[in-house]
Amino acid sequence: MRIIKIGGNIIDNQRELSQCLADFSKIKGSKILVHGGGKSATKMAESIGLIPQMIEGRRITDAAMLEVVVMIYAGQINKNIVAQLQANSTNAMGFSGADGNLIQSEKRNHPSIDYGFVGDVKKVNIDLLTNLLSSGIVPVFCAITHDGKGQLLNTNADTIASELAIALSDFFDVTLNYCFEKPGVLFDAEDDSSVILTINQELYSKLKAEKAIHSGMIPKLDNCFNSLSKGVQKIKIGHHSMLQNDDSICTTIEL
Amino acid sequence: MRIIKIGGNIIDNQRELSQCLADFSKIKGSKILVHGGGKSATKMAESIGLIPQMIEGRRITDAAMLEVVVMIYAGQINKNIVAQLQANSTNAMGFSGADGNLIQSEKRNHPSIDYGFVGDVKKVNIDLLTNLLSSGIVPVFCAITHDGKGQLLNTNADTIASELAIALSDFFDVTLNYCFEKPGVLFDAEDDSSVILTINQELYSKLKAEKAIHSGMIPKLDNCFNSLSKGVQKIKIGHHSMLQNDDSICTTIEL
Repeated sequence: MRIIKIGGNIIDNQRELSQCLADFSKIKGSKILVHGGGKSATKMAESIGLIPQMIEGRRITDAAMLEVVVMIYAGQINKNIVAQLQANSTNAMGFSGADGNLIQSEKRNHPSIDYGFVGDVKKVNIDLLTNLLSSGIVPVFCAITHDGKGQLLNTNADTIASELAIALSDFFDVTLNYCFEKPGVLFDAEDDSSVILTINQELYSKLKAEKAIHSGMIPKLDNCFNSLSKGVQKIKIGHHSMLQNDDSICTTIEL
Repeated sequence: MRIIKIGGNIIDNQRELSQCLADFSKIKGSKILVHGGGKSATKMAESIGLIPQMIEGRRITDAAMLEVVVMIYAGQINKNIVAQLQANSTNAMGFSGADGNLIQSEKRNHPSIDYGFVGDVKKVNIDLLTNLLSSGIVPVFCAITHDGKGQLLNTNADTIASELAIALSDFFDVTLNYCFEKPGVLFDAEDDSSVILTINQELYSKLKAEKAIHSGMIPKLDNCFNSLSKGVQKIKIGHHSMLQNDDSICTTIEL
């Protein structure tokens, strides 16, 4: 079972996205795609006069911004990805967490920051998900969940990928791949040849203490170590070319 | 098996929509919801500077307008309906035709009018659809399909409802309900008490010849007679209160 999360510039670059989806289609066996939103939600928000706000790399989601991310993530991006996968003979089906109650979350209750309509994953509907997978469906998740009471919530796509991986690790050997525009976690953010081939908790703590890791990478790596400690077999971070080639350079995360 | 299409002002009125979804949730047995787009796609198009074009009651869908309808129909409206149905303990799952290749269409090739990215339904993936229904899933379809080659297409929601009804009529006794803000097909469009209780092909031809039927109703009724001739058991058009009450006044369509 492979869970592939694609994000960053892949989503915004039609040529890269097409290549990535073609590579994803060639992967044998059960698989799930999770996609982030790229820059189009921000662009759409700006074009209708909203000003996006971020705290610690996370978007603050007021009611108007929630409408935008639902439209863009669950509508435009998700359905275009699904249609492209279908053209690649992959029987993709696009989901938010509300669909089939596949991912239920709860509105984040932070002591000092009001994140707005942001959800933290509470429960994956593992029975339905495994049922869909065994019917040959390839689920494609966007970064929208719901609270079960009628409210859609914006949820970090990395977290969705890691929560799905954890939930499925009771039933499958799960490999989790985070694909983005860089070849992996870098020692030097400016130097693409400085890929850290393996990162374990000890090295991670050291790099964090030295502030040698880009702040945007920290929630991603926190998710990784959390997933590994909860049963996920293997995690790799790197360029989407790793979907095609198992030997391509990337970062492997180990406990 | 009931297939309910909701459209018109129901979609744009949050209170009406909530009531309608609560009523829909109470229907026993297999069911499918198909929703139109209401006015929000037009509003969004206007807010980003697009000018919507209509010919014979159908939207002309250029590339920019396709993006808008995908966002609004498959994203905003579909996911909000699904989340609300989940809150009503209905295990809804939202679909475009691309999802699971459930509805494949082909780009309309009209001799004189270029409709743009508009699709006419070619094939319903009946195996997957019946499989989902037998798992207790309640499908919620928006009015977006795909051509199987990666292109999403805008498709009339009434047609989607009728094509689903026809495809399912080989396996189920299918009742098709078209719900909107009026109590049925009216003799006098200005008088809600002038409901035509039963309309058959003979009466329909007569009313059409007399131009006594509102032009927006013609594609709907054409769909109805087509569906009945292809095996659908029963069709009713009326206010969504008929979902709650089998005896409420509405128009029944007969061959």
